[in-house]
Amino acid sequence: MSLAWFQSDNVGGISAELWQAMAAADSGEMAPYGADHLTASLEARFSEVFEKECIVAPVTTGVAAKALALSLVTAPFEAAVAHAKAHIVTSEDGAFEFFTQGGRLITLGGEQGKITASDLAACLLKIDSRREGALRVRALTLTQATEYGTVYSVDQIRALGEVAKRHGLRMHVDGARLANAVASLGCRPADVTWRAGVDLVSFGATKNGAAMADAIIIFDRALASDLDRRRRRCGQSISKMRYIAAQLHAYLQDDLWLRQASTANATARRLAQGLSALPGMGIVYPVEANMVFVRLGDAAQASLAKSGIELRLSRHRDGNVYRLVTSLTTTEAMIDELLDRCGAALAARRPD
Amino acid sequence: MSLAWFQSDNVGGISAELWQAMAAADSGEMAPYGADHLTASLEARFSEVFEKECIVAPVTTGVAAKALALSLVTAPFEAAVAHAKAHIVTSEDGAFEFFTQGGRLITLGGEQGKITASDLAACLLKIDSRREGALRVRALTLTQATEYGTVYSVDQIRALGEVAKRHGLRMHVDGARLANAVASLGCRPADVTWRAGVDLVSFGATKNGAAMADAIIIFDRALASDLDRRRRRCGQSISKMRYIAAQLHAYLQDDLWLRQASTANATARRLAQGLSALPGMGIVYPVEANMVFVRLGDAAQASLAKSGIELRLSRHRDGNVYRLVTSLTTTEAMIDELLDRCGAALAARRPD
Amino acid sequence: MSLAWFQSDNVGGISAELWQAMAAADSGEMAPYGADHLTASLEARFSEVFEKECIVAPVTTGVAAKALALSLVTAPFEAAVAHAKAHIVTSEDGAFEFFTQGGRLITLGGEQGKITASDLAACLLKIDSRREGALRVRALTLTQATEYGTVYSVDQIRALGEVAKRHGLRMHVDGARLANAVASLGCRPADVTWRAGVDLVSFGATKNGAAMADAIIIFDRALASDLDRRRRRCGQSISKMRYIAAQLHAYLQDDLWLRQASTANATARRLAQGLSALPGMGIVYPVEANMVFVRLGDAAQASLAKSGIELRLSRHRDGNVYRLVTSLTTTEAMIDELLDRCGAALAARRPD
Amino acid sequence: MSLAWFQSDNVGGISAELWQAMAAADSGEMAPYGADHLTASLEARFSEVFEKECIVAPVTTGVAAKALALSLVTAPFEAAVAHAKAHIVTSEDGAFEFFTQGGRLITLGGEQGKITASDLAACLLKIDSRREGALRVRALTLTQATEYGTVYSVDQIRALGEVAKRHGLRMHVDGARLANAVASLGCRPADVTWRAGVDLVSFGATKNGAAMADAIIIFDRALASDLDRRRRRCGQSISKMRYIAAQLHAYLQDDLWLRQASTANATARRLAQGLSALPGMGIVYPVEANMVFVRLGDAAQASLAKSGIELRLSRHRDGNVYRLVTSLTTTEAMIDELLDRCGAALAARRPD
Repeated sequence: MSLAWFQSDNVGGISAELWQAMAAADSGEMAPYGADHLTASLEARFSEVFEKECIVAPVTTGVAAKALALSLVTAPFEAAVAHAKAHIVTSEDGAFEFFTQGGRLITLGGEQGKITASDLAACLLKIDSRREGALRVRALTLTQATEYGTVYSVDQIRALGEVAKRHGLRMHVDGARLANAVASLGCRPADVTWRAGVDLVSFGATKNGAAMADAIIIFDRALASDLDRRRRRCGQSISKMRYIAAQLHAYLQDDLWLRQASTANATARRLAQGLSALPGMGIVYPVEANMVFVRLGDAAQASLAKSGIELRLSRHRDGNVYRLVTSLTTTEAMIDELLDRCGAALAARRPD
Repeated sequence: MSLAWFQSDNVGGISAELWQAMAAADSGEMAPYGADHLTASLEARFSEVFEKECIVAPVTTGVAAKALALSLVTAPFEAAVAHAKAHIVTSEDGAFEFFTQGGRLITLGGEQGKITASDLAACLLKIDSRREGALRVRALTLTQATEYGTVYSVDQIRALGEVAKRHGLRMHVDGARLANAVASLGCRPADVTWRAGVDLVSFGATKNGAAMADAIIIFDRALASDLDRRRRRCGQSISKMRYIAAQLHAYLQDDLWLRQASTANATARRLAQGLSALPGMGIVYPVEANMVFVRLGDAAQASLAKSGIELRLSRHRDGNVYRLVTSLTTTEAMIDELLDRCGAALAARRPD
Repeated sequence: MSLAWFQSDNVGGISAELWQAMAAADSGEMAPYGADHLTASLEARFSEVFEKECIVAPVTTGVAAKALALSLVTAPFEAAVAHAKAHIVTSEDGAFEFFTQGGRLITLGGEQGKITASDLAACLLKIDSRREGALRVRALTLTQATEYGTVYSVDQIRALGEVAKRHGLRMHVDGARLANAVASLGCRPADVTWRAGVDLVSFGATKNGAAMADAIIIFDRALASDLDRRRRRCGQSISKMRYIAAQLHAYLQDDLWLRQASTANATARRLAQGLSALPGMGIVYPVEANMVFVRLGDAAQASLAKSGIELRLSRHRDGNVYRLVTSLTTTEAMIDELLDRCGAALAARRPD
Repeated sequence: MSLAWFQSDNVGGISAELWQAMAAADSGEMAPYGADHLTASLEARFSEVFEKECIVAPVTTGVAAKALALSLVTAPFEAAVAHAKAHIVTSEDGAFEFFTQGGRLITLGGEQGKITASDLAACLLKIDSRREGALRVRALTLTQATEYGTVYSVDQIRALGEVAKRHGLRMHVDGARLANAVASLGCRPADVTWRAGVDLVSFGATKNGAAMADAIIIFDRALASDLDRRRRRCGQSISKMRYIAAQLHAYLQDDLWLRQASTANATARRLAQGLSALPGMGIVYPVEANMVFVRLGDAAQASLAKSGIELRLSRHRDGNVYRLVTSLTTTEAMIDELLDRCGAALAARRPD
């Protein structure tokens, strides 16, 4: 077992079910650029899963899904609110600004990677009270599950949705790990999306067993009027769309997406429980999805390093915090092996 | 055999060799976002094939490859020259303008979808002579093979390269069908690219047996200084890059790309010969790659339609011109069947 | 009299009436950024002159007026039609592309710098017939008077307006020399603007006696919803707006704008008549406004040059064509002196 | 005396000296678009005043000066650091994002509207330590005098300049009130600009007696390579440039700019001293330039309101803070009258 497995949920391969779906889609000719029957039936499939008619636009990366979605609701001279530690703020080299052509991200802090409804309300009130020249705020983007492996509850999203609506904001969910969040909450997908006020979702499958298969889900048809033009000009009109559509169909079939996410969530919890029992280790955030953030004392870190266990520092670098990610390919055996190795390494140093 | 097979070179599936390469890449964990060993060795592979050290950036669509490549050499207040019928001009909803953030396309006509060196020189001289305020021209983009299924000769590209160099332009090749062009010319890939003055290529594999696998090839390292940042912000930083890299490796292995393209070129020629022998049909452009443009008289068109043969109008709509495209999945039997059906349909009307 | 007087209509100073208006506006404090009473009454004044309620946004340059106006009706992934020789195409370093953030200019030729209704219709039909990916065309921009000193008739504009409306285009008039056009036609301002289907005008005063005073006039309130935000962010929210407003009031007072333009038009006609009587000189375009384009034979050119008369080549460089511009500061005496000098120069060479 | 006089430094008219300069520039013809002799000699004049050869680009507004200057040093996928309360952040509807075409503002807090060198260093270190995807920071923009009427000392700017240089940032000064700052410090203009590490200044004259006359000053010629193209396309190529150039010449003549600013600074100090002696009034920031921020208790506020004294709330709305601005047109008599009225109003309420 290599530590690299815990680096990201993108290190694993493609689910068997998705492979089969792609292989099945590989026979004969199909019309390109999404004019095939697999793509044609995607919207019906998503509408069923989300219990609401929706528009679905498959794209090849989560960044494209997110930034393109936000560009539908944020004009170049408008702003969107995001958490200060959101991926869109810290790690995408300005994809939001590029796709919106000059929109601005207004950032809020918030414990555990979450924006609170009261912070949002306070921020918007302050901006509304400004004189001319303050950028109009038009969108709120939430990451669900968050970058810290926590999950907004249904109530939290609903409360945010109410504030958003009151101020004329559209609500977007960066759902690169939406499966993990829904599986964690045990709710229906609708409960944390449109029923709670969400207008658009960037729906990720890539971190959960797919290859280059994400999608924008739009619950309000009015937002999609220029979607096709925008997709083409940003290079997301995909000729062999059938392979993405096939994956997404398989992904949604028989709740595969939620089952895979549950597995990853479970191994993350197992990992967190094991680590928290070790000396010098502290779990930083509630482990509600498939990520564990652990703080290591200096001695523990040294011991691990001496044993060749080099964990990956959290991107946000608040002290000695390390991020471990599980995925559908993570097994209990891998967790236990890692815990054993950590335990042994830490025990070895005790004599000191 | 369905006529849909001739609609586009994107209607077919994935080459067996590329499937196997993806399957082989599917084992175990690999670092995401191109930090895997398959991606790491891509540049060496391309450098070998192109006989020159180059930078390679895989992306998921040809539009992204092209527009991102051109944004490396065209500032927002600069212009690029393209053929008036180039895909980038007619069919991408402003991808060039989006990626360059406001660059301008200056279009030239030219027989058979080709820009001539003398037209380019005349255009640039005219612009150079203008007073202040004329956009600075910084790039030339050629489509090779062209949108009309013709191929620039090595000499033609070299001549264009000389004009480009003289006026300070960078030369880009839209190589969505570069394989067909190289196979058609029987030259080395280098002969129609950097040796002829080409600075960047958007190298397409998707129309020739791959799934979502194109790449930007950059022959001058200086042009790539901001490439990584630009890729991330346009949503082309791909987490499961291994599957694209694996395809590209297989694509280049043992000249597979050229062999597949030769097959497509050959069936296109067979199709053109067969059609030209039929009454009321005229082949419009030299068939040098994998596309046949045929002009139908009204009577011929009616006869075909009566027999259920609905050909696809050429995008550029110059009269009754239809486009038929072959690909690696087109067989001689399919060609012959189509010719037989057309022949029968046209014969049926003779008595009139 | 210096030849520089004929170089541009921008070489002269500020009208006496406008100076006085500025001086009158200079007393006491006034609220900045257009919250003063002079700016407040501008819309009423323009509405009166144009016989229709309109929104007026003063800006400091014609380029800003034009590009900002067009950005109100052309999204970043849309296009506007312009004459190939229009200033916006040839001389503004991509202001249109900058303000629209990636819009595209589709250019048409046309005699005398004018687009014809039939050419426009043909162009739009062709684009409409294209498959997906062709940029949506949303605006038509006309220059009135044109860059060649010709003037669209009321009927010509009306015909263009009908085609525009039929295809869903908004019609914009670049009115840097609108005064000259209206004075030349002897019509009411409304006749060549909203009554003929024009939605927006960039109204120039700067070439006709003002200093940094142009304005966008919008006849359809719906187009102005984001105007204030857009003005601020493009740097056209002017703190000392009173001085522009004062000029515009004086400019419209008692038809000053039209009287000044008439003067300029008259001296241009006198110049054209005089020149056309000289040997080796040909007037190229109908002299309908304040510009004269004259083609010189090589011998005539040499003779003038020998006498120190260096005319200014037309920007568009079609052969030996020179542009002479008159303005409100051009006097008949200046015209006559120029004609005398030219006549003498050309006579001097006769003996050869 | 109207309270409106204290609303902004833009409420007053044009200095007598500047009027005379404009009037003098109004005779005869001059080449347009800055090709006149007044503009030609501007760079020499500024180079003298700033004791260093510099490039000077006059524009018509401070927003244009600032955003255009920053676009020279911040690519669309880069970021600039600004104070969270800087005008560019709070009040320009995204001019920075528009001119940079998608750049990002990273904001820092800081007492009295000032960024500290240590905060800047900490911010940059944190960003540098991030993994891929964090926007590259390329510029620092300071407002001098600040939005709170405070002034960076020479040492403070120098310290910021050192941090900026160390991290590869260019330093820009928003000098809408640079005159007030230099007059306040009693230093040479060079001391708070290039000698302290400043690369570009947006130099404001409009708030200090000019009409539509600001300028970008560039101390490093390499930054100006595309300046002319960028000016034209953003609508800041001014045909009657002579009137701006004339004003700027007069503005710099015999230190007029500093003398006028000193007057404004002095009346501001007088106002602050007077107000601070009144009951229920607290001066919030050190009064180092021409702005006074005063906090009113509720009772004081009510008393003033009852007497018809409606002060203008500070844009940043931190509690009951009001902003009063003086300018060259503010007289001591006006100050004393205001103080008397306030004193009377507050005395009147005492009995309560």
